Amino acid sequence: MKTRFNPHISVDCVVFGFDLNELKILLINRDSVEDVKPDKNKIKLPGSLIIRFEELHQSAHRVLQKYTGLDNIYLKQFGIFDSPGRLSDEEDVTWLKNQTNVEIQRVITVAYYSLIRLDDSKTTKLSESFNAKWYSATEVPDLMFDHNKILEEGIKTLRNELISQPIGFNLLPEKFTLNQLQQLYEVVLGVKMDNRNFRKRAISLKYIEPLNEWQKGLSNKPAKLHSFNRDEYEKFINKNTLFII
Amino acid sequence: MKTRFNPHISVDCVVFGFDLNELKILLINRDSVEDVKPDKNKIKLPGSLIIRFEELHQSAHRVLQKYTGLDNIYLKQFGIFDSPGRLSDEEDVTWLKNQTNVEIQRVITVAYYSLIRLDDSKTTKLSESFNAKWYSATEVPDLMFDHNKILEEGIKTLRNELISQPIGFNLLPEKFTLNQLQQLYEVVLGVKMDNRNFRKRAISLKYIEPLNEWQKGLSNKPAKLHSFNRDEYEKFINKNTLFII
Repeated sequence: MKTRFNPHISVDCVVFGFDLNELKILLINRDSVEDVKPDKNKIKLPGSLIIRFEELHQSAHRVLQKYTGLDNIYLKQFGIFDSPGRLSDEEDVTWLKNQTNVEIQRVITVAYYSLIRLDDSKTTKLSESFNAKWYSATEVPDLMFDHNKILEEGIKTLRNELISQPIGFNLLPEKFTLNQLQQLYEVVLGVKMDNRNFRKRAISLKYIEPLNEWQKGLSNKPAKLHSFNRDEYEKFINKNTLFII
Repeated sequence: MKTRFNPHISVDCVVFGFDLNELKILLINRDSVEDVKPDKNKIKLPGSLIIRFEELHQSAHRVLQKYTGLDNIYLKQFGIFDSPGRLSDEEDVTWLKNQTNVEIQRVITVAYYSLIRLDDSKTTKLSESFNAKWYSATEVPDLMFDHNKILEEGIKTLRNELISQPIGFNLLPEKFTLNQLQQLYEVVLGVKMDNRNFRKRAISLKYIEPLNEWQKGLSNKPAKLHSFNRDEYEKFINKNTLFII
């Protein structure tokens, strides 16, 4: 029985981190973290060909674990990149063949995005021990393969879902101020929002629950902390879902 | 260079048809339409392994063209079925190997659903000339591989999208009565709806546009025809989209 043409399947992960100031992306150097002046074309999204008895989401979790050391982080499939020409760069393909020791004709990749709150030094340091680095989303270099396109689609997805689903709370500390919440929306959406309107809207939403706690360690007037209440959100969404008929 | 384990990739299509009475599913007999008493286990969703220079949506269009003769029909990706054990039935796998002449270890399939209005005899007859048959969605036999599961997910997706997106109009004639619209919702969702409330709601929606035309060929009082107005829908959705903050 012949071996017919057969594309390989991989997963690639767009890992978003938010440190209350900036949206960041986790990228890896294809060769080594020791490479002090990395060739900009050697940077890529974390990813992997899938393994025989592994489902796609398991591959994605394996990749995240490998490059962040973290389990149990928010992870969501957002697209399939299947263009037959997506491995057009000869040098990239040669690297991939050497890396995997496999004759590769075509790779279809399933893209995931992941959300990580960079709210303590432990988390922010993690990547360095795992051969990966955080880049500002506004300063991403040229990446290998079609990874800039995948990243772009990932950011588009994040923006769309941030305004329609309660995913943003995965990028914030468990307890956050309304200013931090606004900062998240402004940074990810790339817009400036009216502070008074934003607070008014946020306070009106039962699922953004005010706590009897205040932000610590700041000299000026401490700000009230809030948390996301999923039960209240479910009630809200059940009442407000739009039916087209 | 060795050939490492490498799953194959296919597309499978859940093709929905609506004839104003019933939701139907297009299924194919794996061997031949001549098989008068087909073994129930030989029925499957239309599908195909992908071809080398083909994107996934092109594969899905090719499959639809092959089994319906139709181009330009509504087609949407709704899931990836990637369980390593999904080809567990030995006989199914043997058939697949013979059919494709390929040594197959694992197939990951990308599922699409498609919507076809069965509003004239020409369309409803199409499938028979192409080795496919319409089955009532309530009387689907045991299918090959995990195709019952894929179909089930397809129906779940159709139901969710029918109430939140204007896809149902792809299953109705261009000009439809409000009764036909209600019938579509009742059949697909499997519920009985209050006729007066449904009409009231439908009439209030600008994107369900009343025409100066009436249903022909019926002896009782003719019903007004309506059509879907996409521009009005866009206005409606822009005004009513729910932002979580």
